[in-house]
Amino acid sequence: MDDLIRQHILPGLKNDALDELGDSAKLDLGSGSLCFTTDSYVVKPLFFNGGDIGKLAVCGTVNDLAVAGSKPVALALSLIIEDGFEIELLDKILASIGETASLIGVDIVTGDTKTVEAGAADKIFINTAGIGIRPAGVDLGFEKIAIGDKILINGTIGDHGMTIISQRQEIKFQSQLKSDCASLADLISELLESTSDIKFIRDPTRGGLASTLNEIARSTALSVEIHENDIPIKPTVQAAADMLGFDVLAIANEGKFVAVVSPESADECLRICRNHPLGKETKIIGEIVDTRDVPLVEIETRIGGKRIVQMPYGRELPRIC
Amino acid sequence: MDDLIRQHILPGLKNDALDELGDSAKLDLGSGSLCFTTDSYVVKPLFFNGGDIGKLAVCGTVNDLAVAGSKPVALALSLIIEDGFEIELLDKILASIGETASLIGVDIVTGDTKTVEAGAADKIFINTAGIGIRPAGVDLGFEKIAIGDKILINGTIGDHGMTIISQRQEIKFQSQLKSDCASLADLISELLESTSDIKFIRDPTRGGLASTLNEIARSTALSVEIHENDIPIKPTVQAAADMLGFDVLAIANEGKFVAVVSPESADECLRICRNHPLGKETKIIGEIVDTRDVPLVEIETRIGGKRIVQMPYGRELPRIC
Repeated sequence: MDDLIRQHILPGLKNDALDELGDSAKLDLGSGSLCFTTDSYVVKPLFFNGGDIGKLAVCGTVNDLAVAGSKPVALALSLIIEDGFEIELLDKILASIGETASLIGVDIVTGDTKTVEAGAADKIFINTAGIGIRPAGVDLGFEKIAIGDKILINGTIGDHGMTIISQRQEIKFQSQLKSDCASLADLISELLESTSDIKFIRDPTRGGLASTLNEIARSTALSVEIHENDIPIKPTVQAAADMLGFDVLAIANEGKFVAVVSPESADECLRICRNHPLGKETKIIGEIVDTRDVPLVEIETRIGGKRIVQMPYGRELPRIC
Repeated sequence: MDDLIRQHILPGLKNDALDELGDSAKLDLGSGSLCFTTDSYVVKPLFFNGGDIGKLAVCGTVNDLAVAGSKPVALALSLIIEDGFEIELLDKILASIGETASLIGVDIVTGDTKTVEAGAADKIFINTAGIGIRPAGVDLGFEKIAIGDKILINGTIGDHGMTIISQRQEIKFQSQLKSDCASLADLISELLESTSDIKFIRDPTRGGLASTLNEIARSTALSVEIHENDIPIKPTVQAAADMLGFDVLAIANEGKFVAVVSPESADECLRICRNHPLGKETKIIGEIVDTRDVPLVEIETRIGGKRIVQMPYGRELPRIC
């Protein structure tokens, strides 16, 4: 275990707090309020076009901190490894974790490693917990959302989920699909620094856009209207979803956020996002509207009709992240 | 998933931060420096005499914060559940998590739940990450340890490990064995408030007392001498270890800490510990001595001889925590 930690796990993740190898990292943080999050990653396959479980474990947790309005400061990394898992693959995953964290500028400051006997886990599971500092003045929440607010997304939807599904099903055009797995911390930080008119941000991961918008409707008691024509979807993603019978609206994303912004600030937000590499295809896809009967999410279809977008239900697609 | 979270996971863990069900909890903390830790729990069996995986997941992480000199403030809980795992057992584990956290006075403020298909995990794995605040003035670390310092332990060793092992092996006297799984936060906090002469604290979990003492020798370049006669061990624990061929010194504990204290404060520390329910059998088991050749851990045996206590090596006993 000691060898595993010192030879394979530590080298890619260098920083003072981690090198102490205490069970607990000591951090000196500035003022502002603290955000704290955790996520376990069980994605299958471990490597996919556009990323791997390691990159996902860093970006996913960083994104949870970022959408809460905080700047990611530190991550804790916990591995559950099946006995017999190839050490070369472990090294590859750890290198990916190290590179991703270093690109983002977040330290992995503490960790834990458990091995279980062959058959007791499926290769490797990764948990990352994260701490972020939310600067004074940043205030996001469902309660700030009002009628007329615009809904914005920073690019195409469904890329991550359809990549994973297609790779599992080994469908023909899988090579054209690529996960959008990325850290949103930088783009969100730019947005929050530029305007205080951002009401709410969430990353539409499990359950996709449909789930995030339904959560907004449920939590605000207001309705949401979106326009099919304005939702960016790659043709290959749409084709894969159609072929396999999935609704792209309910498919997971790993490098996208939904922001609810005041109508006055919408154009400025659009401009900032489009200037960022992760926001070139940002679109305003809809708005918050008054509730007639019950709060719901409606989509105006391409041919001008309307249909209700339901909260994804039933057995959830497992091991997408 | 939503039902699982709302009906089974949330009810036992009530607090404002968690009820928001964001992916990230917002915390307002006082001053002092922050400690951050993570641990995954894969113990087998899930329920054992003296505890269960849920109690262990709370106490273990709380103890990692406590031995770093911090007061535990918040935990993040992440579950990986095998499809088909009995919901009654899940409820029992979650109730145990809720009760343990509430007794300790630490909130579970954020969480994550993943399910994997049958066969992809062994029933349930739990990760808890934790945040603690280390009060100004508390300063613990290997570098403070000096020759002459006393080594203290708050009770009998090997109870947790031998309970788990015996239950797995179904040996006859297993009913007389009981895990020491407990939160050390309260006792350690009392100790730290009473004197600034505490140099270092560590919980001897995996690898037991042998591992912790060897870490001290390795990190300080000083030697450690302990006295077999002074080490508290329950006769049943010793008997089980002898029968199964284990060295109790290398067996995991889950409710014990090793403290290195100045010789002047040792009696006062002993008094404080013995007044606490978790420290009635506290003993001074040895001291830090000068290194002759290489730093090592030596035990003076009952019959007056000396032997070296090695760092436990080889294949580690899996799934003890």
